[in-house]
Amino acid sequence: MVAIVSNLKPPYYAVIFTSLRTEPDAGYGDMARRMLELAATQPGFLGLESTRNEGFGISVSYWTDPEAIAAWKAQADHFVAQELGRSEWYRAYRVRVCKVEREYGFEKPG
Amino acid sequence: MVAIVSNLKPPYYAVIFTSLRTEPDAGYGDMARRMLELAATQPGFLGLESTRNEGFGISVSYWTDPEAIAAWKAQADHFVAQELGRSEWYRAYRVRVCKVEREYGFEKPG
Repeated sequence: MVAIVSNLKPPYYAVIFTSLRTEPDAGYGDMARRMLELAATQPGFLGLESTRNEGFGISVSYWTDPEAIAAWKAQADHFVAQELGRSEWYRAYRVRVCKVEREYGFEKPG
Repeated sequence: MVAIVSNLKPPYYAVIFTSLRTEPDAGYGDMARRMLELAATQPGFLGLESTRNEGFGISVSYWTDPEAIAAWKAQADHFVAQELGRSEWYRAYRVRVCKVEREYGFEKPG
């Protein structure tokens, strides 16, 4: 996903997910793609930015409020339990729930 | 920088910087490295996570409070003004200032 989410107005919420992959696994990309499709259908989902390099990845998802994040976490935990445990995919990860207080940006004219 | 920052206790602050690079430029890596060195010397700096793939990057820096972020922004603006303008390096970017309210994580044993 190579896109900057730039249409949001603070305050809203962000979930910063940083992760270190285990060895590449053929199933991971498919799991991650379906997880994203699932997130996008959740109430309160506002957008996602994600990138990964040499096993280290950062994904930031944006949400209307903490309740939407909690509901998504329940869905995601259920999803992961149906698949391999998250511990199979990651050597380590960190999840941070944040309130976005302000933002600004720049876009090169067309 | 391939490391997860995992030693922090909320509440603290995060700056999420998402960017889309212009064409690769030999000077960029050096600029980014010096910028990071500068950040690490700032009062209130807690850590940084950063990754980039195919021109799309996400860097998250962590700070004690909004005042530390404002002081760092003034330094960074000065630094960028001395170098090429940021608009030379990026097609687009977005900066989000967030309060980290809670976090959790996982690390594979040894």
